[in-house]
Amino acid sequence: MQAFQIQKVSNQISAEAQHKIDFKTKPTGALGTLEKIALQIANIQQNLSPALLNPHLVVFAADHGLAREGVSKYPPEVTYQMVLNFVGGGAAINVFSKQHGINLQVVDAGVMGDFPLTLPIIHQKIGHGTKSSLHESAMTILEAEKAIESGAKVVQDIFEKGCNVIGFGEMGIGNTSSASLLMSKICHVPLLNCVGRGTGVDDEGLKHKISILEQVLTKHKPNNLLEILANLGGFEIAQMVGAILQAAQNQMIILVDGFIATSAVLVAHALEPNVLDYAIFCHQSDESGHKRMLEYLKVEAILKLNLRLGEGTGCALAYPIIQSAVNFLNEMASFESAGVSNRV
Amino acid sequence: MQAFQIQKVSNQISAEAQHKIDFKTKPTGALGTLEKIALQIANIQQNLSPALLNPHLVVFAADHGLAREGVSKYPPEVTYQMVLNFVGGGAAINVFSKQHGINLQVVDAGVMGDFPLTLPIIHQKIGHGTKSSLHESAMTILEAEKAIESGAKVVQDIFEKGCNVIGFGEMGIGNTSSASLLMSKICHVPLLNCVGRGTGVDDEGLKHKISILEQVLTKHKPNNLLEILANLGGFEIAQMVGAILQAAQNQMIILVDGFIATSAVLVAHALEPNVLDYAIFCHQSDESGHKRMLEYLKVEAILKLNLRLGEGTGCALAYPIIQSAVNFLNEMASFESAGVSNRV
Repeated sequence: MQAFQIQKVSNQISAEAQHKIDFKTKPTGALGTLEKIALQIANIQQNLSPALLNPHLVVFAADHGLAREGVSKYPPEVTYQMVLNFVGGGAAINVFSKQHGINLQVVDAGVMGDFPLTLPIIHQKIGHGTKSSLHESAMTILEAEKAIESGAKVVQDIFEKGCNVIGFGEMGIGNTSSASLLMSKICHVPLLNCVGRGTGVDDEGLKHKISILEQVLTKHKPNNLLEILANLGGFEIAQMVGAILQAAQNQMIILVDGFIATSAVLVAHALEPNVLDYAIFCHQSDESGHKRMLEYLKVEAILKLNLRLGEGTGCALAYPIIQSAVNFLNEMASFESAGVSNRV
Repeated sequence: MQAFQIQKVSNQISAEAQHKIDFKTKPTGALGTLEKIALQIANIQQNLSPALLNPHLVVFAADHGLAREGVSKYPPEVTYQMVLNFVGGGAAINVFSKQHGINLQVVDAGVMGDFPLTLPIIHQKIGHGTKSSLHESAMTILEAEKAIESGAKVVQDIFEKGCNVIGFGEMGIGNTSSASLLMSKICHVPLLNCVGRGTGVDDEGLKHKISILEQVLTKHKPNNLLEILANLGGFEIAQMVGAILQAAQNQMIILVDGFIATSAVLVAHALEPNVLDYAIFCHQSDESGHKRMLEYLKVEAILKLNLRLGEGTGCALAYPIIQSAVNFLNEMASFESAGVSNRV
């Protein structure tokens, strides 16, 4: 597997950045979460006046063999259709990215159907959907490695265009199942606490989904992280793992979306714990299990809007708040500069 | 007191708006809070393609006699200094308003010092700070009425410039005390559950604050809402009450900030319950008591960012999310238009 060198973020300017935050014209700590984000970004960039440059959002799409086992309310062809919807500008993530000037890229990581090569898609299909992990490994180790490399390459290309903040989204009918399996295995959490309704299965559907996933877990005996990813993951998740690792290696700010994106962070974090220093968790999903994932990583998300959509929508919606954190650090007056009394 | 005619928002187009929301290319309900906001705004504007026009944020500033009783960590002159900071563009609300293209207006509702009339401030001082409610009524009934009228006038003037969405913020050393008193009286909640640390008093300071406010509550025996407001309120809170009532009468979208702004909503709502139909609660403050206020009104806030700053910062930070709600309703493709399958 491709090796990544991910540095721990230095605390060298942390005290100075905190001092700058504390002497803005507001009570100490009064900007709450924004102050934490500002400090994190100043530390990542080692700069008391940080900047968000050429923001990007990459949506990885792929199909899942498991979708044939009736774990989702929607048919697998929706993955293909939604990619065309992304290209056509009609999906939620198009609307929110456009609103905030975020450059949106769509990656075919392994959708079942083939797209015309002329479409503005990054074509790096690992296969035509994964195998059903109910019967065999979702992908081979070689495919998992290739997916990590492809995901990393997308980020490297974007990085070279001067981007320093990047979010990741996904589309793949059946991928909450894959994310639940990864979570259960990596966090050692019973499957029941990892599985939710995805795009909205009913009680009966949920029971079926859990029963299928229990069988999948029993079937596979992976010996390491790469095998866990290959047995249970998806092509979009595996590419996202590579993307996250590359972004952290490049010391970019990483915007993490919901349940499935966080499952990719779980894998990346288990491989390279330092990735967390670069990650900003944007939205705590309505999908049950996501809260537990965030607790496992000991992180908190900026937004809780009961979204359960994926596509990177949580990243795009949180982006203006992250921008606000940078802006207050750069633009607010200090007590001294504004002539405001600091204490009684 | 000035009479307001506030219509209940009609549900006439509600079913059609919900249908439009449900047939966007996403699982039903997957945009969570954004779907509720979109529906509320469509209903307020009676329009399936609503729009946010010429957004404004008005910060009402005033001083409090109670501030002399040591209920705040900051000296009263900070109110005056912060108004100058607003005018100079150095406060948090300046930064966030500018970021989102929100027109910011500052109102002197009753700051102790006098501002040069040439400054870009709406000069409508009701008095040089309120009296200390520990000893007498914070203001007279006439002053409370005048404040409501003045607040309403500000909104009417802005409305006539084509604004249909307006947020309200405040600045006033000592005003969390005033808000706590109003809350206790209107919601019939013990004072202990209404009082927090404001700008950051320590344990000793908090004990003192509570003891002072208990004495204030014992002293006054108001017979109606206007007397409650006059006895316990502040000039900025009273002007905000008028502003909220006028905005609701004009069927504008009202953005509600944190603890103090919500105390003004409590008064406005007690006078005219229909105001809630027009209100979007932007941020649940870190100030203890605010959560209980929101529960009393049976509403939920969009953001929980542990802010405790006021100034309307919660409104400005939530604004892009409200805009996203409008945008997805207007811009997303439907299942039909995008050729995406709606069900298995």
